[in-house]
Amino acid sequence: MVSKVASQKKIKGQVFLPGTVHWLVVSVAINLGLLLKLIHDGHLRMEWSGPNGMPGKENGATLSSLSSYPAEPKQANDGQIQQKLINLDHGDPTMYQSYWKQMGDRTTVVISGWQSVSYFSDTKNLCWFLEPGFANAVTRLHNLVGNAETENQHIVVGTGSTQLFQAVLYALCPSDAPEPMSIVSAAPFYSSYPLITECLKSGLYKWRGDANDFDKDEPYIELVTSPNNPDGSIREAVFNGSGGIVVHDLAYYWPQYTPISSRADYDIMLFTLSKSTGHAGMRLGWALVKDETIAKKMVKFIEISSIGVSKDSQVRAAKILDVISDTYEDAETSNESKPFFDYGYEEMKKRWGQLREAVNKGQSFSLPNLPVGKCNFSNQTFGTQPAFAWVKCEQAVDDCESFLKKHKILTRGGAHFGSSKKYARVSLIGHEDDYNEFIRRFSQINYVESL
Amino acid sequence: MVSKVASQKKIKGQVFLPGTVHWLVVSVAINLGLLLKLIHDGHLRMEWSGPNGMPGKENGATLSSLSSYPAEPKQANDGQIQQKLINLDHGDPTMYQSYWKQMGDRTTVVISGWQSVSYFSDTKNLCWFLEPGFANAVTRLHNLVGNAETENQHIVVGTGSTQLFQAVLYALCPSDAPEPMSIVSAAPFYSSYPLITECLKSGLYKWRGDANDFDKDEPYIELVTSPNNPDGSIREAVFNGSGGIVVHDLAYYWPQYTPISSRADYDIMLFTLSKSTGHAGMRLGWALVKDETIAKKMVKFIEISSIGVSKDSQVRAAKILDVISDTYEDAETSNESKPFFDYGYEEMKKRWGQLREAVNKGQSFSLPNLPVGKCNFSNQTFGTQPAFAWVKCEQAVDDCESFLKKHKILTRGGAHFGSSKKYARVSLIGHEDDYNEFIRRFSQINYVESL
Repeated sequence: MVSKVASQKKIKGQVFLPGTVHWLVVSVAINLGLLLKLIHDGHLRMEWSGPNGMPGKENGATLSSLSSYPAEPKQANDGQIQQKLINLDHGDPTMYQSYWKQMGDRTTVVISGWQSVSYFSDTKNLCWFLEPGFANAVTRLHNLVGNAETENQHIVVGTGSTQLFQAVLYALCPSDAPEPMSIVSAAPFYSSYPLITECLKSGLYKWRGDANDFDKDEPYIELVTSPNNPDGSIREAVFNGSGGIVVHDLAYYWPQYTPISSRADYDIMLFTLSKSTGHAGMRLGWALVKDETIAKKMVKFIEISSIGVSKDSQVRAAKILDVISDTYEDAETSNESKPFFDYGYEEMKKRWGQLREAVNKGQSFSLPNLPVGKCNFSNQTFGTQPAFAWVKCEQAVDDCESFLKKHKILTRGGAHFGSSKKYARVSLIGHEDDYNEFIRRFSQINYVESL
Repeated sequence: MVSKVASQKKIKGQVFLPGTVHWLVVSVAINLGLLLKLIHDGHLRMEWSGPNGMPGKENGATLSSLSSYPAEPKQANDGQIQQKLINLDHGDPTMYQSYWKQMGDRTTVVISGWQSVSYFSDTKNLCWFLEPGFANAVTRLHNLVGNAETENQHIVVGTGSTQLFQAVLYALCPSDAPEPMSIVSAAPFYSSYPLITECLKSGLYKWRGDANDFDKDEPYIELVTSPNNPDGSIREAVFNGSGGIVVHDLAYYWPQYTPISSRADYDIMLFTLSKSTGHAGMRLGWALVKDETIAKKMVKFIEISSIGVSKDSQVRAAKILDVISDTYEDAETSNESKPFFDYGYEEMKKRWGQLREAVNKGQSFSLPNLPVGKCNFSNQTFGTQPAFAWVKCEQAVDDCESFLKKHKILTRGGAHFGSSKKYARVSLIGHEDDYNEFIRRFSQINYVESL
């Protein structure tokens, strides 16, 4: 599945100088390369601390280093950024911030002090805490993009798709079953699934790991993330046992990441603002659920665990989703600015291009082959360009996360995803400055390691 | 503990007419009374349905009737409101909406489309998803009101105090203990505690009910709500076993409800916007936590279960809390409008006055005696005037909730709070129209039942 991408001859941004200057540059590059190799081999030790320092991991939980990443990186000069810890562990979607800044006031919302007083949003809806404007905007956007069927589906809003995942487990696992329900997903799977499932040692459900290894003749839930986090693969359920229920996490099924090949029409589909529009700080997700009883039980869970979902974020999200639809549907506004998914697609394409170039600089790393397809939304044919890269450290490196950490690049190692430590997940949707610095270091490491 | 409040001779709002008209009014009142008694005794059956209809309770869960309450009641004429189902089951704090409307633009926030992109709010804070402006506003308000010590406390923000309660359980219950930790609270206790605790059949903790009945020599957590939900009593921990940890839910420790007698300085204190400012739809609460390790584990839970808390709601809440402080601290603005807690205090005083009058119309109901004290914030001496009334049905009525439901008044019965069905909890913080109609019906029932 993982193979080396063919070498590319044209290296973007590289300038060849004539004569002496050329040789000087080559000499300095080799010196720098040797220095980096010394550091990597442990002859020189690096330590760092302070606001961007790496805190100690706690109880083996994956996300403990969240606090090492600044929300708003300060302007740094070149010297500073070369010393900086680059955190690509989390999928913090700050890449999108520049787009929303370009959009100016068009997505600004004004909320009065008397709003959001009641717990209730729409008492006629089975999801009584769902703001009607948000529900309409979600339906409109899915219909525009064509990535999910919204007819005969109930929308359930959640505090991110993370809460919705828990609501699904609560809804699907009978409280009177003799044994907890088995929860599985094909490895590599999203690292939060086992953490959430095991967090409270629930008697309703139990994490059973890789769906490929599951062969019990008992009820189970299989989580299918497509495109997959971490490796970007396009997926279907792998296990077809009796009594199985499949939950589709479609957080990345948007046209900036992957061709929209068909309108998904599964029983339970999860989406999130974080990865569609990039508004992770809103903590907002939604589920499309066919069965009314399941939708009601999900609503019940959200009622018990948080008595609904922030109205403020729903109001903002409605505005943002509607503006995205406007840029495609409204001829007048669409002339004023680049439509959102076009921006996202081009940015992801650029970043994947940079990454593949860096990988091609040596033999230290490889990337998965990703499928190419026709996108019904954009009418373009392109390869999946996921929010994360699933990097494999080749040769003698056994722990890719630790290896990159020595170079002040924080990633999430393969073991968190039920896979080998030879892999690490790298976020491609962070701030541009950080990403460029990552590419610079990654290229250097690859070059030096391959000497 | 529960006693009949002394009869009051002066009945507010009652007008005595001379001669014939007087007798006509008395006659009509008696006819109406007899009609109500027939309905109550089952000789006439009432049914209702539609948007305000009472949905079937599901799996015995307390909150299943949430959807029967409209967020924004339509303007109704007198005839309509007399037929309306009055939902006082939930503590939906819509009473506060009129105050915030009066405040006009002063609490309006403008949020740009590029805000709330990152997951992170403040990477220097152990609670990395806590907006600094919200943290400052919380500290400022506590210092102004004097209801909680903020020095040497960590602020942890949550999706309502409901999520914070779960975070506390996660933080305090060791994952490797042989038995789940016992969770107790003195009855009557907040009805959501057992629901949340038992919801996922956690192996970390187990609901053990009334703290007064708990006598095991093992680690436990006692939840102390003060003023208490549902009965408004001022509380301290009742059980002093070894290995006990006390969690203080101070959702109602604000000067509109109770005299602020001292600056609370407990190890773990929970607060919520819903009951302090009335912004339930924001789903925002905060904990003040002394121990850094506990605070970190709470943050970890919120990270795993929802990857933080809505930034939008935090931004709005910061504005609202700051405006409240402004109305007390800023001489210029304080002249423009009534300060928030003054409004809340007067509204609660008025509503409690109406309720006591209604109770005094007959012998059918009684209310708890509530403590009187000096408030350090307002310098007034007054009795606790809680957000809920803990009504006891006297005489032959064994199920107070069902009894009131026959009169289209939805309340929450005592059994949900670990107490007798003779009691029902009634919200006093709903819309004024609904509350007035409740008082009208309640007075009539009391009068007729006592004939």
